[in-house]
Amino acid sequence: MRVLSGIQSSGKLHLGNYLGAIRQHIELQHDNECFFFIANYHALTTVQDARRQLMLTRDVALDYLALGLEPAKAALFRQSDVREVCELAWILSTVTGRGLLERAHSYKDKIAKGIMPTMGLMNYPILMAADILIYDSDIVPVGSDQVQHIEMTQDMAGYFNNTYNCTALKRPEARLNEAFIVPGLDGQKMSKSYGNTIDLFDTPKNTRKRIMSIKTDSTPVAGPKDPERCNVFAMFKLMAPPEEVEETAAAYRKGGLGYGTVKQRLAELYEEHFGPARARRAELEADPDRVEDILADGAKQARAAAAQVMARVREACGLANVGSRR
Amino acid sequence: MRVLSGIQSSGKLHLGNYLGAIRQHIELQHDNECFFFIANYHALTTVQDARRQLMLTRDVALDYLALGLEPAKAALFRQSDVREVCELAWILSTVTGRGLLERAHSYKDKIAKGIMPTMGLMNYPILMAADILIYDSDIVPVGSDQVQHIEMTQDMAGYFNNTYNCTALKRPEARLNEAFIVPGLDGQKMSKSYGNTIDLFDTPKNTRKRIMSIKTDSTPVAGPKDPERCNVFAMFKLMAPPEEVEETAAAYRKGGLGYGTVKQRLAELYEEHFGPARARRAELEADPDRVEDILADGAKQARAAAAQVMARVREACGLANVGSRR
Repeated sequence: MRVLSGIQSSGKLHLGNYLGAIRQHIELQHDNECFFFIANYHALTTVQDARRQLMLTRDVALDYLALGLEPAKAALFRQSDVREVCELAWILSTVTGRGLLERAHSYKDKIAKGIMPTMGLMNYPILMAADILIYDSDIVPVGSDQVQHIEMTQDMAGYFNNTYNCTALKRPEARLNEAFIVPGLDGQKMSKSYGNTIDLFDTPKNTRKRIMSIKTDSTPVAGPKDPERCNVFAMFKLMAPPEEVEETAAAYRKGGLGYGTVKQRLAELYEEHFGPARARRAELEADPDRVEDILADGAKQARAAAAQVMARVREACGLANVGSRR
Repeated sequence: MRVLSGIQSSGKLHLGNYLGAIRQHIELQHDNECFFFIANYHALTTVQDARRQLMLTRDVALDYLALGLEPAKAALFRQSDVREVCELAWILSTVTGRGLLERAHSYKDKIAKGIMPTMGLMNYPILMAADILIYDSDIVPVGSDQVQHIEMTQDMAGYFNNTYNCTALKRPEARLNEAFIVPGLDGQKMSKSYGNTIDLFDTPKNTRKRIMSIKTDSTPVAGPKDPERCNVFAMFKLMAPPEEVEETAAAYRKGGLGYGTVKQRLAELYEEHFGPARARRAELEADPDRVEDILADGAKQARAAAAQVMARVREACGLANVGSRR
């Protein structure tokens, strides 16, 4: 199966991002043909500063490569290195009614937040559909808030195929990410906007400090504790091996285990998980040519796939010919 | 000066199309660097049949080459052979408010005519702006109904340059076509929708028949006639050399000149003007490879110009890098 995932930078990654989406997406590389693109065309709708745009793009590449994306298994590339995606977006726009776009949640949400209603925001789902369809994607792993975009993509593929009485575009399916509620330092859902995150690539010292600051109740060390009502345990059980989770739950109930001890262990676990990724990230950051090579190679694979679909699309709608000789 | 003109097929050309626009545009090739593109991406908003699309595209090329466009002086190419124009359209859409597009006359007119409001129709002026801006065009010759599109293009260039604090996009200027009211067979403005046209590339026999059917009053041959109130003379004076126009006007006033005689002369003039073009068109139609070569060569020139602008645009907004190594 060909899996497609678009990644838009959301700045510094935290544990919630990782467990809720990134890890799940990267794991797909083992049994699928994965295309991961860094959505920098889309990012232009919100980031309008060249240096920041380039930096965010690079950061996404570093993050994903550090967290386990293997270039030999999955193609990682910049959206803007397959320009034909904009061509397909134009073509899709000619068969897509304005009403469909007016109903997009993401557009309505952004406008409600006071973001300027540019045509880019309104066209966003068309470019997203083009991103998916141009690679003949079978599966698009998404969060529940993105399901509507996949439905719109299915609609647009259908509009095109029906209009031109062809099968040029393949209907993709959404694959819902496993829901992972990752609690933050204060027990609320971990989220940048709550300021309760533990960043993946923070320094060991800062990470430890963040973990030590997880809110707990004031049960003394000796007292028995309820693991299900403890913020430290909630995070611990996402990181520790199952046997250790059970043992620790038992120790909570029995009493004699202090929160501080569990926090220390959590910090160790965190370092075990993300220490190597942090090191890989630093290594890659120091070797921008290597990152460029990986992205160029990913783009090459992506362009080859896109060329096939665009040849079908152009033929179906009568844009064929000399352009392909270029 | 670099002149840009986009040509969308409107089917069989008539004298009104020629004198009102085509001739004026082609003449610009002598003193300017001209880029003429066949607007097949735009045509997708109305023509949704591959064979017809290809045929219309080819017909525009044949028409313009037959009517005097010289490939050595002006680049003639298909819009769809410079795909980056869709990329620039996306980029412009991210800096362009939806309100600007809502105010486009052409969009409102098309919707009022009951055409389905696709996003393609709504985005039309953005693609048109991209078409103009991607070639650093100085001048765009247009009819008065198109002036708003050039103003919108100026606006979008400004939005981009302001947003990214750059001068990547050059502000184009409109050049209004000289107004030429070409009367049809019935004296109304010549227009396909009135069925009163004389087609440029019709057979000599049909053309003569059409000219002989121009409506006149019933003044007998011997009687004096008012040239300014005669449909035949109105067309005649657009085609004949100035001295002949004067002589004929005098003969009208004097009497003794029959409408039939003037019609015969008009048919001769028509054949003198368009006979050679008809022959050239037939020759080119029989040699599709030559037409393809001309279009390919035009596309090459256009892409070279577009590449320069897109390099500036991509750098300005932070999309630069490896893509250019492709």
